[in-house]
Amino acid sequence: MANTETSTTITTTTTVVAAAKAATAAIAETIVNKVLLGEKSSNKRPGSETKSLLTNVNNKKKKVDDNIQKSISTGFDHHHHHQYNNRTKLVDICPRSPSPPLSIPSSPSIDVEIENLPNSSQSALRTDCQSLSSDLGDISQPSFRESTSIHNTLQAKTSERVVLMTGAEQSSVVQPLLTDLYQISMAYAYWKSNKHQEIATFDLYFRKNPFGGEYTLFAGLEECLKFIRDYKFHPTDIEYLRATLSSYIESEFFDYLSQLNMNEIKVYAVPEGTVVFPRLPLLRIEGPVLKTQLLETTLLTLVNYASLVATNAARFRSATGADKTLLEFGLRRAQGPDGGLSASKYCYLGGFDGTSNVLAGKLYGIPIKGTHAHAYVNSYECLEDLSERELCDRLSGERRPFTNLCLQYLNELGPILKILPEETHKGELAAFISYAIAFPTNFLALVDTYDVLKSGVPNFLAVARALHECNYQAVGLRLDSGDLAYLSMKVREKFHEVAIKFNLSYMEHFNIVASNDINEDTLVSLEKQGHAIDSFGIGTHLVTCQKQPALGCVYKLVELANSPRIKVSQDIEKVTIPGKKNLYRFYGHDGKALCDLLTRIDEPEPQTATRMLSRHPFLEQKRAYVTPTTVRNLYVLYWADGEIKVPLPTLKEIRTYAREQIDQLRKDHIRDLNPTPYKVSVTDDLFQFMHKLWMKSVPIGELD
Amino acid sequence: MANTETSTTITTTTTVVAAAKAATAAIAETIVNKVLLGEKSSNKRPGSETKSLLTNVNNKKKKVDDNIQKSISTGFDHHHHHQYNNRTKLVDICPRSPSPPLSIPSSPSIDVEIENLPNSSQSALRTDCQSLSSDLGDISQPSFRESTSIHNTLQAKTSERVVLMTGAEQSSVVQPLLTDLYQISMAYAYWKSNKHQEIATFDLYFRKNPFGGEYTLFAGLEECLKFIRDYKFHPTDIEYLRATLSSYIESEFFDYLSQLNMNEIKVYAVPEGTVVFPRLPLLRIEGPVLKTQLLETTLLTLVNYASLVATNAARFRSATGADKTLLEFGLRRAQGPDGGLSASKYCYLGGFDGTSNVLAGKLYGIPIKGTHAHAYVNSYECLEDLSERELCDRLSGERRPFTNLCLQYLNELGPILKILPEETHKGELAAFISYAIAFPTNFLALVDTYDVLKSGVPNFLAVARALHECNYQAVGLRLDSGDLAYLSMKVREKFHEVAIKFNLSYMEHFNIVASNDINEDTLVSLEKQGHAIDSFGIGTHLVTCQKQPALGCVYKLVELANSPRIKVSQDIEKVTIPGKKNLYRFYGHDGKALCDLLTRIDEPEPQTATRMLSRHPFLEQKRAYVTPTTVRNLYVLYWADGEIKVPLPTLKEIRTYAREQIDQLRKDHIRDLNPTPYKVSVTDDLFQFMHKLWMKSVPIGELD
Repeated sequence: MANTETSTTITTTTTVVAAAKAATAAIAETIVNKVLLGEKSSNKRPGSETKSLLTNVNNKKKKVDDNIQKSISTGFDHHHHHQYNNRTKLVDICPRSPSPPLSIPSSPSIDVEIENLPNSSQSALRTDCQSLSSDLGDISQPSFRESTSIHNTLQAKTSERVVLMTGAEQSSVVQPLLTDLYQISMAYAYWKSNKHQEIATFDLYFRKNPFGGEYTLFAGLEECLKFIRDYKFHPTDIEYLRATLSSYIESEFFDYLSQLNMNEIKVYAVPEGTVVFPRLPLLRIEGPVLKTQLLETTLLTLVNYASLVATNAARFRSATGADKTLLEFGLRRAQGPDGGLSASKYCYLGGFDGTSNVLAGKLYGIPIKGTHAHAYVNSYECLEDLSERELCDRLSGERRPFTNLCLQYLNELGPILKILPEETHKGELAAFISYAIAFPTNFLALVDTYDVLKSGVPNFLAVARALHECNYQAVGLRLDSGDLAYLSMKVREKFHEVAIKFNLSYMEHFNIVASNDINEDTLVSLEKQGHAIDSFGIGTHLVTCQKQPALGCVYKLVELANSPRIKVSQDIEKVTIPGKKNLYRFYGHDGKALCDLLTRIDEPEPQTATRMLSRHPFLEQKRAYVTPTTVRNLYVLYWADGEIKVPLPTLKEIRTYAREQIDQLRKDHIRDLNPTPYKVSVTDDLFQFMHKLWMKSVPIGELD
Repeated sequence: MANTETSTTITTTTTVVAAAKAATAAIAETIVNKVLLGEKSSNKRPGSETKSLLTNVNNKKKKVDDNIQKSISTGFDHHHHHQYNNRTKLVDICPRSPSPPLSIPSSPSIDVEIENLPNSSQSALRTDCQSLSSDLGDISQPSFRESTSIHNTLQAKTSERVVLMTGAEQSSVVQPLLTDLYQISMAYAYWKSNKHQEIATFDLYFRKNPFGGEYTLFAGLEECLKFIRDYKFHPTDIEYLRATLSSYIESEFFDYLSQLNMNEIKVYAVPEGTVVFPRLPLLRIEGPVLKTQLLETTLLTLVNYASLVATNAARFRSATGADKTLLEFGLRRAQGPDGGLSASKYCYLGGFDGTSNVLAGKLYGIPIKGTHAHAYVNSYECLEDLSERELCDRLSGERRPFTNLCLQYLNELGPILKILPEETHKGELAAFISYAIAFPTNFLALVDTYDVLKSGVPNFLAVARALHECNYQAVGLRLDSGDLAYLSMKVREKFHEVAIKFNLSYMEHFNIVASNDINEDTLVSLEKQGHAIDSFGIGTHLVTCQKQPALGCVYKLVELANSPRIKVSQDIEKVTIPGKKNLYRFYGHDGKALCDLLTRIDEPEPQTATRMLSRHPFLEQKRAYVTPTTVRNLYVLYWADGEIKVPLPTLKEIRTYAREQIDQLRKDHIRDLNPTPYKVSVTDDLFQFMHKLWMKSVPIGELD
């Protein structure tokens, strides 16, 4: 902690975050209202009115989302990202090639999302959708008037306004019975001994950063708040419990449970997307002990994996830098269907740019991406399998002999690529041709089914050149096996040669997407050895968090009936920090986080430019003076009086905030190898208080 | 494969499995009918009529479920396992202590489940429950007549009879959009090129057994079948796709999608719970290529994690042997809510005895287990915190001074346990007392909050002895930290001394439950060093599958329009085995599995006692003759003509079958260290066919 003593510049504690949030909420509201009030839209590509609305929005919002930049630089937007029920969001943007080699007025292949609007009217669940369907009328011909009525219906409910801001829906299995049995047993024991109304405080925290790193992204808060808001045992739950639990349980207890809600509870938490560290209470839950205890398992379930996978995504992002496109392809390897959905959501939060998971796109408004599989290539054996052989010219509309053009260019490519045109796989070529006919503006080919350099790349380039002849531009190709560093550089070399030969400079910049068992170490290694990959599709190791598949969040009682509680343990790191606490983050004059400080709840708020003693919570020798330039109170009161107290940010806003949070860490805390631990300290007052209680709680043994 | 040549005994191929299944189905039907027809039941503990029904069932079913045996031997049934809507299932069974030391007529603390009845009328989802609630009437006073009407309603639907057999409900996020975007892109490309009706065959398989082992349990089939049965795009899905996908997609395609179902598809699969190996097609999916392609991601999602975690559970089971109780406590560390549910379900399938996850209990009929947390102990600081200090005697009903009895016995225990009674934590004692008052028949205490041997165990034993005085029996204790082998043996020693001193022999056999970061290696090591643990509560490492967090199932096209397809690759193990195939398992005269054989679809079925050549699929030198004693065709046609073709077994039946399957493996295939790989071979015909196609598909290069 020695290095924290030097900063002495004075600045006041700011409320920048709160102000930014309020501004964002206001903008989102404006947009929502525009949509709700039936802003005219149509199926045609957005025109000038749309653009002026968007300009408006952007002026208000001030900073352009970094996603736009990324989409421009990679071009791997096979499909538009489009918020459901909001047709005002697409604009055409020129591809990254600064001087388009063709006289195509605007590139057809790259669309960019401008704003992430709330879409919570889209129920997460089939059953919910069905219940809404009568309102929807003839959905195959959607109209805004009808959709609007759904929004209005939802808005009528209390606190649904907040939900509308978030763009996400709760999984329906998140319900009171999604808990460990012992929570219900304990609830009964509290109730039976008439202790259930005593006011308790629980801290939710973890003890160790994941993946051998020194930071964690906090995620899952919104889902926790919705769980608390909707907490209600269903009659069939009560019936199940009556039938299952000990026959000694008094019947009145079940009546009590059936009426239970979480309106008396208070939830303080650090904002979702905040960078957090071991032993920081991420949530501080206050309320009757029976109720606070009942929340434990579900809150842990909602925070643990969300934070783990968001942190994993953030680490992948750190490994590639900001200029690469990162796509989550993990659905098929996740822990079942909802595991896959959580993965998509929280990888996006942690810094990924899109997902292959269509349902995640629908529910959370995440950009969806994808190409085709090997099976598609395998489905064609030869050119004779093609039923459609022509393609309409993008400009003239005239039918062109597309297949023949491809074959002609394949022959031209032979000497350039030093391959035998007759040796490329003609089934693969047929597959590419048919795919290009289906998606002439989004052609991205998987090239490793037979042989990347001898077959896949020549076939791709032949089709790309023929597309050009019909006034389209191909997007790129995907590599799914082999040595990705070597192959990507080799492929880029071919692109370079072909771009020169055809005098089409954009072809040098075709998007190269790589997938195939990529993990964080692969990314680090690829960056070191050099490669020519623009986008990574990452599945298994991202969503399963290979390096550490669980974050060990715990939920510990720290106060009951105004009396502090400590949980001692033979393992020192399992000892809890007792009592209700506040949590502050100190920043130095460079804007970087210096250390975090836990105080007792009634201690005065730490002041900027004031030198104070911070102590290691367990080791008495470890102490340091610190003089913060800025102090930030990390807690926000999110839930009290039966309602969510502050507007919740959208997933995309959280994503931006999370990136800013990581940028506020010193580089040595986030570096790949042996990162420096970030210091979480306590005040001297809290230290003394804790150690006194600790001593009191451990019996003195008798040596014999 | 050399060791397969010796077996020559002749037996015929049997249909034992099918016969057993039919029998089980008949029994289940009998029970269902009894329930449906309103078999009288009441809230009182089951009496003689119940027992005679159950005896009947058992006589028919012939083998007693191994669970009963386990419940008896461990006594760790804190709560009755009780199938919802079925109150005819509990009987009291004496505890394992052969000569009960007390004149208690029947032990109150152990209840045993007898039959796993279908409970599919309990919807998996809150929303479903709500839609049913009007049928349920006054649920707080359940009656069979009302519940029956739900069963009948469900039965009225086509093929719901099959669902009724299974006791599980589909998660509502399992829907057509839960897929990778490229499936929908490919569907369009097939449709656009008018290729979508060509008949395809896909194989779903994996390439490597997980966890460094040599076997895998196949799981997830039932969920796959339900997904296929219910496959239907919702109008809002179509609306989302129209709004999101390329504007070049023809509108008629979306109309086509909105009408799509899976009635033309055929699904052959190995039965759920079968032991399987790399390269065996677990599912063979046949039908129009567009439809079969659309199923890929979701089927992989449903099979991958289910099979992985079931295999993990089976390995944990193998590590402990059959006599220990294994409980899944992983909800809080799973991949979100549904990850936790999948974990509970498939760990049970793989051989666990129960779960802490209450919702899994409700949805799948899995026994639920649990005790209390450290927070409960921490919620008491001293004996003065006790509001209720008395307990009614179980036999006489008279109020006894329970707290004073506990203190009195604590003093008596001082010299026996060589501890200072005044040094045990009195808050802990108060917590135990209040818990025992709430659960006098199910008292199981968590003893490591302060100090296991100096505080937890003495306090537990004082309460247990006082319970005995009131004519109850405690169940046991739980250790959640420290050296589990050492502590458990030390605790058992104490139990032994106390049992002698009090002349209460059952106290020597109190259940010792251990939890705290247990993984497979811990279990193996505990078994080696010796311990006295009866039950293990396992969370993180079980559900996250620490050793290997994903099973790499893939889904590959092997035939299209009657023409075989091969996917070649630079990685040899990624090459597919082309064409439609059959799958047989050969058994030797000892009943153990010898090897598996893939044949071309039109080859004759292998005959028992007939010597035939089996070949390694890739390496031409690896060949062996094999003469099976028994041949089993592993494929069952599960889905065709728009319906599930065979009754699906219950989760519990699958669990029993899975255990039998593992028992049919030679020990060297399942041993912990360097297990022998099980051989998956192909016929010579298939070998030749495959290699010819392989050669044809790889272009000959040109050296330069």
